This record gives sequence, C-alpha cells and structure tokens, in this order.
Amino acid sequence: MLPFPNQSPTQPLRRPAGGRQIQNRTKSTRIIRGGDLGGRLKRRRASERPADSSSSSQLAMAMQAALFAGFSQLAAQPARDRTGPRAPARVGMAAIGSARAGGVKAGGAGWAAAPRGVRCRASLIEPDGGRLVDLVAPEEGGRRAALRREAAALPHRLRLGRVDKEWLHVLSEGWASPLQGFMREHEFLQALHFNAIRAADGRMVNMSVPIVLSLGDAQRRAIQADGATRVALVDDRDRPIAVLSDIEIYKHNKEERIARTWGTTAPGLPYVEEAITNAGDWLIGGDLEVIEPIKYNDGLDQYRLSPAQLREEFARRNADAVFAFQLRNPVHNGHALLMTDTRKRLLEMGYKNPVLLLHPLGGFTKADDVPLSWRMKQHEKVLEEGVLNPESTVVAIFPSPMHYAGPTEVQWHAKARINAGANFYIVGRDPAGMSHPTAKRDLYDADHGKKVLSMAPGLERLNILPFRVAAYDTKQKKMDFFDPSRKDDFLFISGTKMRTLAKNRENPPDGFMCPGGWKVLVEYYDSLVPSEGSSKLREPVAA
Amino acid sequence: MLPFPNQSPTQPLRRPAGGRQIQNRTKSTRIIRGGDLGGRLKRRRASERPADSSSSSQLAMAMQAALFAGFSQLAAQPARDRTGPRAPARVGMAAIGSARAGGVKAGGAGWAAAPRGVRCRASLIEPDGGRLVDLVAPEEGGRRAALRREAAALPHRLRLGRVDKEWLHVLSEGWASPLQGFMREHEFLQALHFNAIRAADGRMVNMSVPIVLSLGDAQRRAIQADGATRVALVDDRDRPIAVLSDIEIYKHNKEERIARTWGTTAPGLPYVEEAITNAGDWLIGGDLEVIEPIKYNDGLDQYRLSPAQLREEFARRNADAVFAFQLRNPVHNGHALLMTDTRKRLLEMGYKNPVLLLHPLGGFTKADDVPLSWRMKQHEKVLEEGVLNPESTVVAIFPSPMHYAGPTEVQWHAKARINAGANFYIVGRDPAGMSHPTAKRDLYDADHGKKVLSMAPGLERLNILPFRVAAYDTKQKKMDFFDPSRKDDFLFISGTKMRTLAKNRENPPDGFMCPGGWKVLVEYYDSLVPSEGSSKLREPVAA
Repeated sequence: MLPFPNQSPTQPLRRPAGGRQIQNRTKSTRIIRGGDLGGRLKRRRASERPADSSSSSQLAMAMQAALFAGFSQLAAQPARDRTGPRAPARVGMAAIGSARAGGVKAGGAGWAAAPRGVRCRASLIEPDGGRLVDLVAPEEGGRRAALRREAAALPHRLRLGRVDKEWLHVLSEGWASPLQGFMREHEFLQALHFNAIRAADGRMVNMSVPIVLSLGDAQRRAIQADGATRVALVDDRDRPIAVLSDIEIYKHNKEERIARTWGTTAPGLPYVEEAITNAGDWLIGGDLEVIEPIKYNDGLDQYRLSPAQLREEFARRNADAVFAFQLRNPVHNGHALLMTDTRKRLLEMGYKNPVLLLHPLGGFTKADDVPLSWRMKQHEKVLEEGVLNPESTVVAIFPSPMHYAGPTEVQWHAKARINAGANFYIVGRDPAGMSHPTAKRDLYDADHGKKVLSMAPGLERLNILPFRVAAYDTKQKKMDFFDPSRKDDFLFISGTKMRTLAKNRENPPDGFMCPGGWKVLVEYYDSLVPSEGSSKLREPVAA
Repeated sequence: MLPFPNQSPTQPLRRPAGGRQIQNRTKSTRIIRGGDLGGRLKRRRASERPADSSSSSQLAMAMQAALFAGFSQLAAQPARDRTGPRAPARVGMAAIGSARAGGVKAGGAGWAAAPRGVRCRASLIEPDGGRLVDLVAPEEGGRRAALRREAAALPHRLRLGRVDKEWLHVLSEGWASPLQGFMREHEFLQALHFNAIRAADGRMVNMSVPIVLSLGDAQRRAIQADGATRVALVDDRDRPIAVLSDIEIYKHNKEERIARTWGTTAPGLPYVEEAITNAGDWLIGGDLEVIEPIKYNDGLDQYRLSPAQLREEFARRNADAVFAFQLRNPVHNGHALLMTDTRKRLLEMGYKNPVLLLHPLGGFTKADDVPLSWRMKQHEKVLEEGVLNPESTVVAIFPSPMHYAGPTEVQWHAKARINAGANFYIVGRDPAGMSHPTAKRDLYDADHGKKVLSMAPGLERLNILPFRVAAYDTKQKKMDFFDPSRKDDFLFISGTKMRTLAKNRENPPDGFMCPGGWKVLVEYYDSLVPSEGSSKLREPVAA
C-alpha cells in the first residue's frame, strides 16, 4: 500500500516548528526525499496525458507531499535533466501576448507555444474524458428551433424539479464531463460503488455522486408501452428545456442510493428530503440535448460562468496555475488568509501567475445556510475592500446543488473544478459535512474528506491542498492558522457562532471579517427578523 | 462511457435463438465485431502485466463480450498477427512434462517455457500486487519460536472472535494480497469509498469489503498510553496466534461502515449482528505476522488449501485456464450443468485443460445456511457420483466469512480467487444476496452483482462469466438453462423449496440432484429434527 499519513486519532495535526508546511505528512515526505522527485516530475511531464494512471497517481501524491512538506525547496531544486522543464511547467501556461510569457523558464512537452492573441486553452488541465462536454444545442444552423419544435411535439414530457434543473444545468455545461446526460444504470452503479466511472478512453474519471433523474411508475409504464426512445424535459410551467434520447429506465433503490452516498440512512438529510424521498421509484438516463443555455434571471447570471467561459477567462489572464476554493458560506478572513497563503506558496514554487477561482456553490442548500444572493453580495465586498486581490481572483457561481455528503461529495466538488480548468484544489476540515441528522455528533470524521480526496480514483491529476484550520488569534488580533502550541490564544468562531452574532447585530472580533462583508451578513439576518407576535425567523429572502 | 448492456428492467435477459450465448449483450458485442478484437487481443498479449489499466479493462470487457456473444467464433478466428499467439495463450500455460503441452499452439510473451518437472507458477494469473502475500512465520530459522515468545511477552493482547480469526486466516495466506494485515485507515477508507485500493506499484487492486479488527475504548487508551507499536493477537483461550506491528488505531464508525458496505442500515444483517454490532468503537490496523498456519481440527483442514497450494495444484495439473465457482449451498445439477458447460466453452475457445475450482465458502454463514461439514460431504458425493469430473475439478474451502453484501461482496469473492490462480470467475443471479432484513423484497437487484463485477476497478484481468439461471425442465426431466420461450416447462426450485423438501424427507424431481448428494441433505435435516415437545429445529450440528 502507498504510505498515507498514519495519525492516530489522539494526535492532532502539527505544524512543525519553523516549517511552512500546511500539514505534516511525515510518511509521504519519504517518497519525495532525494533525487527521486525530479525523476518522477520528468516522467509526468513527458506527457500531459498519463498513459499509466498508477504512476501519475504516485506522482500526484509525491507532488502533494512536496506541497505540504516544503515546496519552496522544490522550486529551488534544479531540474535533474536538461530536457525536463521545472516543476511548474507541467501545468503548461498561456503564452498569449503577455510580457510574463517570455519570463517563464519552461520547455519540453508541457510547453504550449501559441501564437499571440489566440486563446490557448490547451495550457490548462485537460477536462475529464479529454473533451469538455457541451450539451447546449448550437445557435447556428437552426438546431435550437428544431429541438424546441421536437420537444414541444414529443408525447412524453418529464417535469423537472428545482434540483433536477440544477443538475441539467451542471450536465449541459460539462461540469460532469464526460457525462453526456443523466446517468444510465451502468454509470449510476459505478458512481455508487466506485465513486468513479470508466470513460470511453478507458481511463477512470471521478464521479462520486449520482446525477440522475427520477420518474414515477405510471409515466415509466406509459413510456415503455410506447417504446419511446426520446422524452422532453420541461420546466415547472411545462416549457420544454431539453430532450433526453436513447433513454434507459431502471429502478431507483432509494435506500441503497442514500446509504452508499451518505453512509447513513438517518432521516433528516437535507438533499434526501428535498430531492429523493418524494422522487419516483424509477430513474431515467440518456443523452441530453438542451435547447438553450440555462438562465435564472435572478440578477446573478453574470456570475454563472460555464467551465468553457472560466477556461477562457483563465487563459485571458495568462494563468499558469488555477486553484479552486469551493464554499457555501460567507468569506471570513481565515478563508482569505488561506487563499492568499496558497497563492504565495504557488509563487514560491515558481508559478508566475496563479489565479484563484473563488467558487461559491449556487444550487440547492439547506435552509439555515446563507442564501446565494446574500453570499454573492458579501463576496463582492470582500473583493472591493481588498481582502482578496481582484486581479488574481475570479469569482463565479458553481451551479451544483449541495448534497452534504462529506467525503463522497468533496470528490464531486473537486472533479467539477478540473473541468473548469483548476489544477489545484483547496480542501478544509470536514468538507461538505454537517451535523449527524439524528445523533449528537458530526456526520463525518473531519479528516476523512481530505484523506478520501487525496486517494480518489480519477483525481490523480489534481493537486489537493489540505489546509490546517484557521482561528482567531486573540494575541495578534487577526485570523491565523491554529497553532496548538499556544492553543489558548485562539478563538474558534463556528458558523453557528458567526450567525448568532450577525443575527444579534453584534460585531465579531476585529479582523474576523472585513466590515463591509459583515454588514451584508447583518443585513441578511435583519431581513429575517420575525414580525411582531412571531417567534420564528421568516423564510430566507433574496438580497 | 463504455457501453454496457442497457436493458430496461421490464426486458428479461434473452438467449438468442440458435446462439450459444450465456447472455445477450448486444451493446458490448458491437465493441468486438470485425477485426478489432484481434488487435485488442494482440495488444493485451504483448504484456502479461498491463501497463495501462484502462486498455486492459477495455480488453477484459471485449473478451467478456466475446465469451458471451460467441466465443466459438473467437477460437476459430486466425491470429491477426504472426507474432501474436491465439487467444487462450495470453493466460500462459504450464508446460510441465505433459503430453498436452506440445499440442498447444502458443508463443510470444504469454509463453512460459519451463523446464520439465519445475513448477511454473508464472503460468497462472499474477496475484494482486504482483506477489502472493504469505504472513505465516517461516518454520526455518527459529522465527516461529521467537514470534511465539514475543507474543507471549507482549503487554497488550487482543482476543480474536470467530470471524476475526477467519479474517486472520484469510490475510495470512494472501487471499487479500497485497494486504499485509488488518486494514489501516487509508485502506479502510479506500475499501469503503472505492471498493479498491492502490497497491505499492500504483495499480488499483480490488478490495470491496473492509478487513478490520476492532477494539474497545479501554484497550485503545491503554495501548496508546504506552505508545505500544506491537500487540499480540490471541485466541479464545488466550493462546497467541499472531503479532500485529506498526499499529494504527482509528475510529470505527459502524453506521457508515454498514451503510457503505451493505447499502442499508436495516437491523438483521447476519454479519453485522455477528461481527459489528457488539464490536469495539475503534479499529486497529497493522502488519500481521502469524505464528503458524491456521488449523481448525474439524476434519476438513485437508480441504483448506492456501492460494499458494492451489496454484501448485493447478500447475501440477497443467491447467491453462482456471475457472472458479464460489458457493455456500449444496451443489445441484443446475450448478453442475453450468460448470461442465463452462469447461466445454473454454475447450471450444482453444484452452486445452481448463480446471474448475469448486470453492465452497468455509467461514461464517447465517444460521439457516447448510453448515460447511454437511456441504463438504454433499460435494464429495457429487464428485463420487460423476456429476463433476474429478480430473478437471479441484474442491477446496475458501476460508472467508460471508458478508451477504451482494454486489459489494461478490467483488471480494472474485478478487480472492485471482490470488488463488483463477482467471475466470462464474457469477450467477444475485450473488452474495439475501432477502432484505426488514422489507419484503430481495436486498439487491438480482442483476447488479454481475454488472458491478464486470465494471469493478482492479478486476480487469479477470474474465467474468455471468450465467443464465438454470431451472428444472419438466419436459426433459433435467436441469437446463431457463428458456423463456417455453417458460411453463420450467420449475424453479429455490433454496427454501429445496430445504423444505429435504426437511420433509421428500424427494426432489428426478435429475435435480444426484441421489447421494440428496441423501446427505436429508441426513442433515434429520439431525436437526426437533425433539418431542419442541417445535423448533435444533442448532445446526457438524456432519
């Protein structure tokens, strides 16, 4: 077995004295000591497309180890072989009319020499399956009109719920590449059992959550009685959105799906209650063709950049590394510290222009999360007030709904960002986690998310960046990485605590969040203040 | 996505008229039509050790498709390339002083030219991880005595339960290669989430069920307080069996383990009640060293052949293909039909000496299964009475306990047989399945087992042979493959029905089971006849 940090549960993660490590991975560091890493990097760089997933995975782990355990040394290490470029070059870079381009010492297979002004998408990490899926009918050639006519005439129509439509959006833009539509049974089974699917080229791509569409028994029987192979998908007002073709209908074993996805069947899982409990007993998979790009008309569509648009933006900015940060909460200075610290480390490694993808999740979230519109207002403030540098930050909305499925879901969050061009993924404590719905504990072990992510099949190409928890340092009066050697100096401000403060219009300690961002939060909770005579908060409202 | 049989649940599997297919896989057959298969086979044969798991998997699927959809044509097809041997040769063969050896037209990389009389284990499929694990201390050099002394002196001792000891047996002989002991957390997480573990060489090996050892909180605290790195494992009479070293202790989240392994958390799962519900809240992994080979002294130890012993036996018999049949029930003539039919098909493919591994499971089974000792007696009769040919059949006991975890467990059953040298695995309807413990339905979809098996990571090298259900043909008065075109001629004799007949000393229809085998079954149920005044069956007794 490949070594993995073997920490007993009683030993917390430590930041070695004087080190700059994000996490101590003693065992892993053994892999990369000495000259071996150079060789590994060279082998990796020899082909952007690894022929052997095993060695690429070893390399990914070695690279991760390097990142954790001293990547400034790595950047300083001379290339072992004249033909091999230095470490950062394997990501390739966009050489697009930029003064920076000439300054990068890169060469070999990773080097994409593109003519000036031409968008060089090949410089970014390759999408899963080799091609970014786009399931929206092209505007040219009358395809949209034809598809709309066909959809209107199809005898079988499935009405999409809110979450179904979000998944359709996700599929249509290729976040789930190489999926071509809602899962057929072989894809569903692979997602449930292996968290990965074998793509047409034979390689495993990660796919940890089922992306499925359900239907009831009556409709199932009607479709099968007709021998229909195509059905129309319509919105809540019966307007056609898409056509699903070459359909396959199979059983929806909800209990098994829930148990294998969440590792529990306890009642009260938000996604289950929203999208599974009342869903049909059958699933329908097929190839999806969407009539036109999905819009929400909520004033936030300009933030809903598709993976193709994000890749264009990263190329436009000459990004030579893209690091993604998934979130579904307001950004506080601990997050900001982490993001700026990551950029600094990537620069130390030799990257010239690492760009942050600050990527709040825009789909279904549970009732007590802050709604998307307020989060976007808050994120805008964070950029306005200079907490994050707008020049090296792209803020966009990730259209997926939230499962709260911890280690299973974090893989989906990471995988989708590969398709958007990110080759670094930041993962924190208990990603996509929540409290156990019935027991008095967290549903998932706080460390399992990053561990599972670092071992997940199909994510070998992605560099996983676990981070140590940040907390409020009462001595320095700012957010900093928690230092267990002076643990009493630190104050942990949980999401619940933050929400309580904002609800009560109290201020958090100085330096916890930028003032403008905090103001947005207070405004949000103000908008929820119960009316006279009511003790309950009102429903969340849009910003 | 690679094509997979897309059958809607309302369409039963059909046996095409005039065909010899075991299963109709229209989509898959598309992959192998025309000249492509030759090319694929050649590529596969070029190296016994696939460098690229993806293409080897495609090939495995293509080969399976060939097996289902007309492998007699495959055998008749001339090799596409002069340097490439014909299909069967990729398995290699034992050229050990046998008249048969010279008759095989094989060559190229698959050919192992071994000197006469030397055991040529390399002719069989390679164990997972490249090396068959053997964790029993060698007799030579005093290692056993030293280990025994150390184990007796170690301050921390963990007492093994029945199932723990069965797993220790499994681990010690390398059935779970490349596992070197009870799982550490990174292995446990990979098994739960991916059903596969990355081996030291970077390749994925299948590992679908957790092989873990639990301990309680008091013992965990004592071990960690001491900073112990080695613990003794002892039997129910406190006699040392093994030492576990370089230990790692981590949390045993039973709910998550059960949900992800069984796809349900309903009460009443036999393995859960036997081995998990009352287990400790911590798991301990480490490297295992076992003092001496595990024996049961129940008169059946001669059947407990280790993977190494089985490989020797297959080599001794000059097997050029080994097909494994896992079972935990008495063998009826439907099973026998299937096994003889498989051998016939392998001969038609060009294999010269396919050997059957008839491999009853010997570990924990649920209370209403027929106990191992009676099953072995019954299997002996089946061979004695010529239902199966002893010359081409090896009967041995598979020491694993039974999970009844359906599609998850069938992967374990198949994977372990790779390590024993089998390169073909027969899979039936609802393998390792059972009734849902609380709902009135089967726990698993009857087709999911073979589907999951055929897609499982790490099993690409194994040829999966799904079979159609056999039933009693009342017209022909024998067991035959069910033919839906004359379904009223067939009688399905379920396990429950069979047991009821045997309990009541009634005879099944002629040709259902050989008379001697049936007699053993009746004897078994006779041994359970309730004593006067009791309406309950007695506990199972040994034969």
